[in-house]
Amino acid sequence: MGTSAAGFDVQGVNSGRIAQRLGELARFGRSEASGGGWFRSFGTDAELGAREWLRDLWHKVLGLEVRVDPAANLWGTLPGRETLPALVLGSHHDTVPNGGQFDGALGLVLATEVVQRLVEVGCRLRHPVQVVSFTAEEPNPFQVSTLGSRAAAGVLRGWMCRGGPHPDGVSLRDALQAAGGDLDWLDRARLDPAGVSAYLECHIEQGKRLWSRGIPLGVVTAITGIYREEVVVEGEANHAGTTLMADRRDALCAAAELVLGFEEAVVRGGGEEIVGTIGQLEVRPNAPNIVPGCVSLMLEVRSPDREGTEKVLRAFDECVRRVEAGRRVQVRRVRLLDQEASRMDPAVIGALERAAAELGEPYMLLSSMAGHDATHMARITRAGMLFVPSVGGKSHCPEEESRMEDIAKAGDALLRALLILDEELDAR
Amino acid sequence: MGTSAAGFDVQGVNSGRIAQRLGELARFGRSEASGGGWFRSFGTDAELGAREWLRDLWHKVLGLEVRVDPAANLWGTLPGRETLPALVLGSHHDTVPNGGQFDGALGLVLATEVVQRLVEVGCRLRHPVQVVSFTAEEPNPFQVSTLGSRAAAGVLRGWMCRGGPHPDGVSLRDALQAAGGDLDWLDRARLDPAGVSAYLECHIEQGKRLWSRGIPLGVVTAITGIYREEVVVEGEANHAGTTLMADRRDALCAAAELVLGFEEAVVRGGGEEIVGTIGQLEVRPNAPNIVPGCVSLMLEVRSPDREGTEKVLRAFDECVRRVEAGRRVQVRRVRLLDQEASRMDPAVIGALERAAAELGEPYMLLSSMAGHDATHMARITRAGMLFVPSVGGKSHCPEEESRMEDIAKAGDALLRALLILDEELDAR
Repeated sequence: MGTSAAGFDVQGVNSGRIAQRLGELARFGRSEASGGGWFRSFGTDAELGAREWLRDLWHKVLGLEVRVDPAANLWGTLPGRETLPALVLGSHHDTVPNGGQFDGALGLVLATEVVQRLVEVGCRLRHPVQVVSFTAEEPNPFQVSTLGSRAAAGVLRGWMCRGGPHPDGVSLRDALQAAGGDLDWLDRARLDPAGVSAYLECHIEQGKRLWSRGIPLGVVTAITGIYREEVVVEGEANHAGTTLMADRRDALCAAAELVLGFEEAVVRGGGEEIVGTIGQLEVRPNAPNIVPGCVSLMLEVRSPDREGTEKVLRAFDECVRRVEAGRRVQVRRVRLLDQEASRMDPAVIGALERAAAELGEPYMLLSSMAGHDATHMARITRAGMLFVPSVGGKSHCPEEESRMEDIAKAGDALLRALLILDEELDAR
Repeated sequence: MGTSAAGFDVQGVNSGRIAQRLGELARFGRSEASGGGWFRSFGTDAELGAREWLRDLWHKVLGLEVRVDPAANLWGTLPGRETLPALVLGSHHDTVPNGGQFDGALGLVLATEVVQRLVEVGCRLRHPVQVVSFTAEEPNPFQVSTLGSRAAAGVLRGWMCRGGPHPDGVSLRDALQAAGGDLDWLDRARLDPAGVSAYLECHIEQGKRLWSRGIPLGVVTAITGIYREEVVVEGEANHAGTTLMADRRDALCAAAELVLGFEEAVVRGGGEEIVGTIGQLEVRPNAPNIVPGCVSLMLEVRSPDREGTEKVLRAFDECVRRVEAGRRVQVRRVRLLDQEASRMDPAVIGALERAAAELGEPYMLLSSMAGHDATHMARITRAGMLFVPSVGGKSHCPEEESRMEDIAKAGDALLRALLILDEELDAR
């Protein structure tokens, strides 16, 4: 399968090698506890180890030219036959705390495999091909997720990252420096859009849509928008014995109404592709014999379009007003994140669809309900994503898994889509 | 005012000295933040500081013999003229987190003042008079409240306290040792009932009943029963983006239904003297982008009788079953405390009523909606309590306050009641 424009026979990916590499990368950060997950957050020794392993693989085994930018993004480059902007294959090697083996890792191992296939058959494409592992994609103790791709897209500046938390006494500056980056020059990690022709990322779906339908390939049409706000409910702390029920302004009872009202707003607000979560909640003073005086919580809405988010928020506004009046509490709200949904590029979607069709594999068009580095890359180049089914839809947990037969199909599709894009983009 | 049986003229308490001592004790654990409250939980440096201050005051200023029992209760003794069991005046010097200046502290300062008046006029009563500050009256990170009085009453044994939480890495054993106690010998803190004739505790009301009626003195007839249980809701943690609303088993949404269902059960369950509170709640893993997998909360019911508590719990049982079925979660419940209401002793109630009448001050008979060390002392001796109005009914918060004119009246009443009890009890 797969004949490049230059006429080389590239054939399919080597699934044995993919499995072996996934195993090698999985050594970094694996918890020793039984059933334990992976702890490879940005700044950990495990994350630095994985980074070193990847650099050696790209440089010593694949023979790529490797560099690290000021955001500590790791880049490997295979030159092209023509002077053209690059086709970039990427993902990330960090994990959430107690995360799984495939999130991020799978995309890097497949990108590596695709480039290695080109190298070992001596196939030089028209475009340079780059592989990239973006820094700190996952939420991390420094509270800056998708750090690397945001810096590459020019939407994260150094000043935004100063003054953040120093977990374990390590600053973001130190962590970046240990990984070969430099906070002071973060702005220089910005890519020149003229230097990139397309960005293609393979990732596990993390949901159930492919798995429950038995479809091996997902072609992503859009990445969900994410809206987050902090909600603070101010009631009145008081003695839990001596304050009569009628005299209370209980912030937790008020917050409970908000939690349920928000859930209702989300469920009524739209179809399968709108979700909303209150994942974080803190009670103050949080003592068994004190009526709660203050509750803060974080709410999140994900929707493939603006209208979905706004419909949910309008319904929640009404709920807030009702609770404020009914319970004599004050509710303060602060918007923390309002990241627009991003559409994937038609040319990349088309290349992935054609690749799947040529392989004779069923595929599904779907939107991504999780954020990805591709969200930011879409701002500066043609971006697209390919999804692999997650067994049982589980992700961000030690049980996260994808089947090798699906992984191999994704590798073949990724390789084929790359060859199609190499032919089609930047034609003379 | 106040002539003892021995004929000394004791006169009233010194309200300037009371105000000064309240100020001195208030230096320990005061938060520096504006409007900040007191942080003097058992085991904190502030709590140890207050303990040291009290020991010095009793020993060096009042000349009492001071000892610490294995529960770290601090005792000061003024010998009597006869070989009789002691009259004990007590309270506690710890606070809830972000608590107020008067809860516990007022009772100790007034007990100290009453004994100092006896000392400075050279009045020796028939009975020995003891002052006591009980250890860890308030809920604390070790999850053992009224530790000292329960140990003194013989209803808390050392084995009940082992294996509890170690906040900040400090065990209850370490905290007791730092305060002069010894977990291994906790059973020896038990008082011999034959050695105590009566226990009398002055405390702020913490509610609004005295304040709203403008009555300066409250004579307590009974202390509310307190029931507490921990409720753990087990759902399923999952990715907040990729898990469709219909697939979720969100432990926080389930807990919100329990919070509101419990509140409804309490309000429907009875009159003014039944209250119920969920004051503590924790979410796991508590991250904005993860559907909550587990929520634990602490619920409390207070009622002057058993039936009130049981009526509330029956209604809550139904709510739990409904939520388990409707949200596919599991709810585990562990009873932590089931303390019966306790009646105060008629002789002590009578002495307090007579003292108020002799002073010409209006007083009110009422039950206490808060638990107190007197609850446990009532098991082994004649116990009684005197309440001082709380401004606006506020308590367990930085704004907690009582007026000096009410405090002085309570001091006079306490002194007079002590003299009455000294005359009436253990008559030959």
